[in-house]
Amino acid sequence: MPRRLLYFKLVGTEKDRKAVEEYLRRYASPGFEVEARLIKSRLPDLEYHCYIAAIAKDVLREIVKAEREGFTAAILGCFYDPLLEEARELTSKMAVVAPCQASLHLASLLGSSITIILGREKHFPKIRELAVKYGFKDRVSFKCLGLCVEDFYTRREAVKEKVAEAARQAVEAEAADVVVLGCTALYGFFKGLQEELKIPVIDPVLASLKYAEFMALVGEQLGWRISKRSCYEAPPREELENFHEMLKFP
Amino acid sequence: MPRRLLYFKLVGTEKDRKAVEEYLRRYASPGFEVEARLIKSRLPDLEYHCYIAAIAKDVLREIVKAEREGFTAAILGCFYDPLLEEARELTSKMAVVAPCQASLHLASLLGSSITIILGREKHFPKIRELAVKYGFKDRVSFKCLGLCVEDFYTRREAVKEKVAEAARQAVEAEAADVVVLGCTALYGFFKGLQEELKIPVIDPVLASLKYAEFMALVGEQLGWRISKRSCYEAPPREELENFHEMLKFP
Amino acid sequence: MPRRLLYFKLVGTEKDRKAVEEYLRRYASPGFEVEARLIKSRLPDLEYHCYIAAIAKDVLREIVKAEREGFTAAILGCFYDPLLEEARELTSKMAVVAPCQASLHLASLLGSSITIILGREKHFPKIRELAVKYGFKDRVSFKCLGLCVEDFYTRREAVKEKVAEAARQAVEAEAADVVVLGCTALYGFFKGLQEELKIPVIDPVLASLKYAEFMALVGEQLGWRISKRSCYEAPPREELENFHEMLKFP
Amino acid sequence: MPRRLLYFKLVGTEKDRKAVEEYLRRYASPGFEVEARLIKSRLPDLEYHCYIAAIAKDVLREIVKAEREGFTAAILGCFYDPLLEEARELTSKMAVVAPCQASLHLASLLGSSITIILGREKHFPKIRELAVKYGFKDRVSFKCLGLCVEDFYTRREAVKEKVAEAARQAVEAEAADVVVLGCTALYGFFKGLQEELKIPVIDPVLASLKYAEFMALVGEQLGWRISKRSCYEAPPREELENFHEMLKFP
Amino acid sequence: MPRRLLYFKLVGTEKDRKAVEEYLRRYASPGFEVEARLIKSRLPDLEYHCYIAAIAKDVLREIVKAEREGFTAAILGCFYDPLLEEARELTSKMAVVAPCQASLHLASLLGSSITIILGREKHFPKIRELAVKYGFKDRVSFKCLGLCVEDFYTRREAVKEKVAEAARQAVEAEAADVVVLGCTALYGFFKGLQEELKIPVIDPVLASLKYAEFMALVGEQLGWRISKRSCYEAPPREELENFHEMLKFP
Amino acid sequence: MPRRLLYFKLVGTEKDRKAVEEYLRRYASPGFEVEARLIKSRLPDLEYHCYIAAIAKDVLREIVKAEREGFTAAILGCFYDPLLEEARELTSKMAVVAPCQASLHLASLLGSSITIILGREKHFPKIRELAVKYGFKDRVSFKCLGLCVEDFYTRREAVKEKVAEAARQAVEAEAADVVVLGCTALYGFFKGLQEELKIPVIDPVLASLKYAEFMALVGEQLGWRISKRSCYEAPPREELENFHEMLKFP
Repeated sequence: MPRRLLYFKLVGTEKDRKAVEEYLRRYASPGFEVEARLIKSRLPDLEYHCYIAAIAKDVLREIVKAEREGFTAAILGCFYDPLLEEARELTSKMAVVAPCQASLHLASLLGSSITIILGREKHFPKIRELAVKYGFKDRVSFKCLGLCVEDFYTRREAVKEKVAEAARQAVEAEAADVVVLGCTALYGFFKGLQEELKIPVIDPVLASLKYAEFMALVGEQLGWRISKRSCYEAPPREELENFHEMLKFP
Repeated sequence: MPRRLLYFKLVGTEKDRKAVEEYLRRYASPGFEVEARLIKSRLPDLEYHCYIAAIAKDVLREIVKAEREGFTAAILGCFYDPLLEEARELTSKMAVVAPCQASLHLASLLGSSITIILGREKHFPKIRELAVKYGFKDRVSFKCLGLCVEDFYTRREAVKEKVAEAARQAVEAEAADVVVLGCTALYGFFKGLQEELKIPVIDPVLASLKYAEFMALVGEQLGWRISKRSCYEAPPREELENFHEMLKFP
Repeated sequence: MPRRLLYFKLVGTEKDRKAVEEYLRRYASPGFEVEARLIKSRLPDLEYHCYIAAIAKDVLREIVKAEREGFTAAILGCFYDPLLEEARELTSKMAVVAPCQASLHLASLLGSSITIILGREKHFPKIRELAVKYGFKDRVSFKCLGLCVEDFYTRREAVKEKVAEAARQAVEAEAADVVVLGCTALYGFFKGLQEELKIPVIDPVLASLKYAEFMALVGEQLGWRISKRSCYEAPPREELENFHEMLKFP
Repeated sequence: MPRRLLYFKLVGTEKDRKAVEEYLRRYASPGFEVEARLIKSRLPDLEYHCYIAAIAKDVLREIVKAEREGFTAAILGCFYDPLLEEARELTSKMAVVAPCQASLHLASLLGSSITIILGREKHFPKIRELAVKYGFKDRVSFKCLGLCVEDFYTRREAVKEKVAEAARQAVEAEAADVVVLGCTALYGFFKGLQEELKIPVIDPVLASLKYAEFMALVGEQLGWRISKRSCYEAPPREELENFHEMLKFP
Repeated sequence: MPRRLLYFKLVGTEKDRKAVEEYLRRYASPGFEVEARLIKSRLPDLEYHCYIAAIAKDVLREIVKAEREGFTAAILGCFYDPLLEEARELTSKMAVVAPCQASLHLASLLGSSITIILGREKHFPKIRELAVKYGFKDRVSFKCLGLCVEDFYTRREAVKEKVAEAARQAVEAEAADVVVLGCTALYGFFKGLQEELKIPVIDPVLASLKYAEFMALVGEQLGWRISKRSCYEAPPREELENFHEMLKFP
Repeated sequence: MPRRLLYFKLVGTEKDRKAVEEYLRRYASPGFEVEARLIKSRLPDLEYHCYIAAIAKDVLREIVKAEREGFTAAILGCFYDPLLEEARELTSKMAVVAPCQASLHLASLLGSSITIILGREKHFPKIRELAVKYGFKDRVSFKCLGLCVEDFYTRREAVKEKVAEAARQAVEAEAADVVVLGCTALYGFFKGLQEELKIPVIDPVLASLKYAEFMALVGEQLGWRISKRSCYEAPPREELENFHEMLKFP
């Protein structure tokens, strides 16, 4: 019976969902089935932290549902790693994985100096905060493209060229030996870049996918699942039922 | 015309709301009017990070409404400082203040070694994370009471004694010269403790109140308001209207 | 009865004292009276740390005197924050506030990435040290004007333009969302800059003023005054009297 | 064709090698074949950093050989993570994984506060140094058993009980939500402990195994292999041949 | 011609001065002559930071004088390292050395985990601040004797026993491999302790002496003297003369 | 009887050994005799960490031998500070000193902002790691020459000019007040540079020499030798003999 992974496309259209689902399936390991689900909303993107609030209940409800449906791991598809702690509080068997955390962990294992390529300065304070929180601040530098997330979807060719330029500069001027593409909307660019630059270029969607597979495996084989003791402790059972009810009603 | 401050009681009963409102009014500076509003929900407390998600839209809607009503500052009433960045993105004139940030800033100005008294270990990872993020980690230590937030409301006398004990130990064994009460539900205890221990004991509700007054003043007098440039940049106008609509519907 | 604040102009002429006094009065909150006192000496400025030594006794004597005269807060008027700990040891009721600490605390509450504009490289090591000590090093960057403090007084127009240029670069190249003017002699420039750049520009003289008012209030209303327990512990009474004597004789 | 993993038992007897090989095979994922090879020497253990020097050439020669034989990943079997950078310089296709790095990465993804259980104080400075280097120092605490590595092999039952005691204390007194067993000789104990304590207990041998599988997969599927650009840059080709020659002669 | 070193006894009696001078002479290297000079004042000790202010001018005047008299290095005799930057600004050929900096540098070269033994909690915040500033915070822990500096002079035997006890605990409970005696008044105790504990015990008076000799040598032989470029830049010549005048008059 | 110091030339030719020996002798203090010994191998340089492995046994054997021959201090001649902990484990009376540690300690005592000039990016990750480990990361910046170690030996004049250029830029653009030449092969350049730039320029070979003399003296005079308690604990006597045997056979 294959293990099932669920990628939450937190914003976008059905077409976008489908595109990322196909992308994920192309790279999934044998024995894993991937599904992408769209959190429907009227949000254009997730550049603003407040936008998450508008879909938070939907996301958590879907997380709870996914665990009940038997998914072995879920991915929160945004490089801000939104709702990661919240989702982990609500699950116990299903792993929950997030793109920035997965990307930085992987990058830090592959090289010494990591450059994260960001869309624009708006993204910088939160990603720097995550780099500090995850423990990698001494080895991370940043490059801003001056592009918003919308550009990432509508002007793929121009974006691709800008990303390549930024990555080249990172390698030359900042001695980066790993580059991280700092937005899930930048998926699909890593391969060509990696070949050109001869260093690993981390695609955050695939980094999440691989960590989802990994956490699924170590959970299943060794019982290494999120500690439910303090940080990710769940509400007590009776409260939890009540909370699940609350999540149902928008 | 008095400046108006709004305290969001994020959980609890109407009676709790009233109690905290009275408490705040007792300590408000002349020229400030304080109101406390309750975010109604079926949540018993906010010990779990996921609980915030269930009320996030309500909180942000109320934040937006409060700015429109002309409040000069708002306080997010929980020591986890939930939704602080989100709320600041959505406001520009009205200051938004949070208890842990306010308390640690104040404490760090009053002494060198700060002990934060927490309810129980569940609270520890998030508060440690905030202490790191706000810049005070080298000077902060923690003491856990082994009590949950519910206890704070239902067993005031016993809690008071336990807090006093923990504070005494902090002073003696850890050389604390400031104590921070690390939960908004611990309001009302600071005075006696402070007299006994002869060091400042920070009440997070009042620390927020005072910072709210302070931010209100520097905004009004000097134009020093939250920078809207990167971290707290708001969505563009047309998106914002759409977002306000989204917040209306639960 | 109004609360009285005292600003120590640590160097300069009677005319300079008067100018800063007027400036402070223009921005003081109702209920506060501000006075500026000049520490007279033959020093041209305070760029060199050793210069403080030459006036240290005078400053501390004036601090002690000010508390006795009933001032509620005093400001040490130099961005190096000189004698802050010493002054706090010698006071208990009167708050003592310093410009760099006040400015960085305020800036860190208003934005994420702070650029401090310094006169010249001489100022850099001490201010970096203070940024580390106060907890904000991860979020602070520096820009040097290549100007000495004397220039700040004698070539105001040229300095103003240089400061504006540096601030613009900080915003563009370093994604600063708050700018701090890193010398008390740069007072008076914040307003125009702030309007041009659309981000908060912190004037260290006014940041001190506002924190002085703030500390005065929390002391009076809540008893939150400098902890006298370890860091700011005062000499025992009998020693103190002797010490006050010593301060009298130059 | 199965992927082949190689575990270097860096010290011990043929019996020890066999035991760890069996242990690894029990936990290897389908599609992976595991082999353990013993670096033969007269060393009793690797508690002393100088001991590594005595086998360094042997280890690196075996690493080079392993890559040529087509292994997809190799594990350096000691919690000091010896020769990790050296081995990565000498390989390009084969991943090289080390127990402390693998364990801390995994632990940091499963919880917030990590306690590492060490044999004795001798081990502490190096492991603390690794925790700093890998980025996890703020979340890590240590407990020493007062036992040397020899004990781990000869007094398994007593050691097991001591480890359990230390882990219990970590959970109770230090609020650990993940425990890491800080020596490869402590393999085999995690399961019972984990069941008793209800938090993840990381076995460093298995953490390495799982990271070896993981790095093998991301290398194969996505080309994410150790960056050969700066930190792990290999000697130029002609030098490398010469170096391989040097490794041959003891 | 011997190199001459000057130790500033910053407080105490002529008898104390003589005692420390003899102590220093006993340990001075051949080729070095040591003199101790007393800064006379009515201060009983230097436990309070404000006390330094009362003698700052005297100290700096003596520093300037010492350089003119041809001393090759001077030691500021207090573990708070008072006036270190100020004194270095005013000198160029003569090295200036301080006990805490010298002790921590030496200790960090001799072991991994350093315990500093302090008189009482008053001393703790400043010494922690210095440990952070000098770069050793991750490796330093503290033990307080609960004794004031006066005790150090008047109850030598009792103090000696308390220090020994604290050092033993540091070694046993905190795995210290170096102990630093955190007050210049604790001089003379290191030898017996060191023999008992079998680890280096740093006497801050002698650590300063040895660093003074060292800095004298590298200055003389290699021209490695305090950089006069930014941190320790001196006032311009004309200002300096004026300043020297100021120092003359108390 | 003179104290004897031993510099290990870890790579190069007999001519190189002789050159460095003469250089060291020129700068040695009276009372010290210096000898340089070459670790012979087929290695061209030590730019790659794996290269150390090939000579590790030889180095340690020579270290042990040197202590037996009565040397008072030994220097490991490579800026990566290779085998420092290993060598210190194996010695007790003889001090062991390394160039990067010695240079950074000295530089941090002479100024505030340190720029390390590196050959090329390959050297950067390890030296950054050492700067973090030794405690100086907040004050250190880096400049890469884009030259390999071979260039340092074969194109001295061109290298000298490039180093001077880099140092000038460090002083101007990064406000460096101390420059460290980050490779032992850059010895001999400091003097001219230092005179030109008017700031200390640290030669790592001579920094090691001076620290070797210093550690020799404090060991002899005060018994302050490497703590043998945890970090540098040696193997137990019987194991040690066995280990010495192992070192003998290549």
